[in-house]
Amino acid sequence: MPGAEPWSSAPDPGGETAAERAAAAVTSVCTGLIERAGPACVAVKPQLARFEALGAPGWTALEAVCAASREAGLLVIVDGKRGDVPVSAAAYGDALFGFTPTPWGEVEGLGADAATLNPLLGTDSLEPLVERAAAVGAGIFALVRTSNPSAADLLDLETGAGTPLHERIAALVAGFADDLAGSDADGLSGAGAVVGATEPKFIGRLRELMPRAIFLLPGVGAQGGAAEALGSAWTSPAAALVTASRSLVGADDPGAAAEELRAAVWSAAGA
Amino acid sequence: MPGAEPWSSAPDPGGETAAERAAAAVTSVCTGLIERAGPACVAVKPQLARFEALGAPGWTALEAVCAASREAGLLVIVDGKRGDVPVSAAAYGDALFGFTPTPWGEVEGLGADAATLNPLLGTDSLEPLVERAAAVGAGIFALVRTSNPSAADLLDLETGAGTPLHERIAALVAGFADDLAGSDADGLSGAGAVVGATEPKFIGRLRELMPRAIFLLPGVGAQGGAAEALGSAWTSPAAALVTASRSLVGADDPGAAAEELRAAVWSAAGA
Repeated sequence: MPGAEPWSSAPDPGGETAAERAAAAVTSVCTGLIERAGPACVAVKPQLARFEALGAPGWTALEAVCAASREAGLLVIVDGKRGDVPVSAAAYGDALFGFTPTPWGEVEGLGADAATLNPLLGTDSLEPLVERAAAVGAGIFALVRTSNPSAADLLDLETGAGTPLHERIAALVAGFADDLAGSDADGLSGAGAVVGATEPKFIGRLRELMPRAIFLLPGVGAQGGAAEALGSAWTSPAAALVTASRSLVGADDPGAAAEELRAAVWSAAGA
Repeated sequence: MPGAEPWSSAPDPGGETAAERAAAAVTSVCTGLIERAGPACVAVKPQLARFEALGAPGWTALEAVCAASREAGLLVIVDGKRGDVPVSAAAYGDALFGFTPTPWGEVEGLGADAATLNPLLGTDSLEPLVERAAAVGAGIFALVRTSNPSAADLLDLETGAGTPLHERIAALVAGFADDLAGSDADGLSGAGAVVGATEPKFIGRLRELMPRAIFLLPGVGAQGGAAEALGSAWTSPAAALVTASRSLVGADDPGAAAEELRAAVWSAAGA
């Protein structure tokens, strides 16, 4: 959530190094944003790169933002797009959802309610993460078709059967539906998918291929997507989440901007 | 580099929390490994998941391991397999290769000499990282064909022209060769590729498609790959790096194990 503008306008929050001061400012800006926009939201999606760029103090800020989100009654979706070979995927799972046993006691991870994952390395790269998410009732959002202009380079390539790569990934994600099944009467699964709002033409087909997946729809606002075009993502009111970052952080009144987006999303969802 | 065994055998290195103690133990184990195996190596490849699982103290340990590597005259290849939309890719670039400007001064990133990247999101997801790497003379290793058993799920899918996906990615990586060109007479480029040692049959074709890329070859040792099978990766002695983690960390004598691997690699390279 932190952007260029909040840095420069934040009062010096104290700390010794530039990283500590910046991390404290990020925490303050994010916490303020959660207070103002939170009532119109269901989740907070911290982008890990921004925190990592501030080193260890950035990671402390990340933990503080996750804690503030939980205190505000919001879910935490950690946006790191992790993906790795099984042994390392397991470590990412510990970091995101679980804990690391050490001779001096368990070290808790971020306690995420969900995390974005990169599925490029295939089934066995997701399994350890799904397993750790399942153990704590958390979910995943695998990148299926992203919102950036170059997403078409690989994700839209036609594979042998005349099927674009993103549909192959959708099938892979759907294969985890039972592993992360909720108790919901609507049959939704925490084996979710990131589907960019910038190319709404794909959403209907992806919904067919992943009937139970919760969709995470980035790209509304700064990236040009419109909530109105996303209707086919919803099979029930909880079936999709629309994310917005820069358009809220940069708004004069983030609370009003979030309320406006919420209204547009509910309308698109047909709720 | 840290594994289960070093945790339990390390003496308590001090610190208040379990995370601080564990992070200090990781630093101690990694530093010792760098001392013993370093003379047979050209680079250290810290796996970010293991450090992140220890939170902020883990990030401090990561910085310490990077510093110890540099002091030992070794290159630092940060293995995080990052990949994201352009605005976030830029932040990862700052974290890995660059710095983050703040009102209180610049916050330095990890100062990596190279980093592993996930190319799934296409050209514009790599550009900001390549740009930041180029600014400091660093390199990238994009995942092209990984060493895990499920890598075939997506990376070996045939795309329209009868070309497996990993060859499409190779072409994408080759497109960055000039952006990260070294001054070497052998024409190598820092636009490198991760090519798993577990499927050596792909290496020859990938070398044709990426004639200037430095190859990073994981999967030797614990994952079953053999250095002897990798010969076609080398067009010159610096054209490929073989990585080993668990087989060195778990060795009775990591220095001897590294020397043995070095001899096998030089032999495979025909040097």
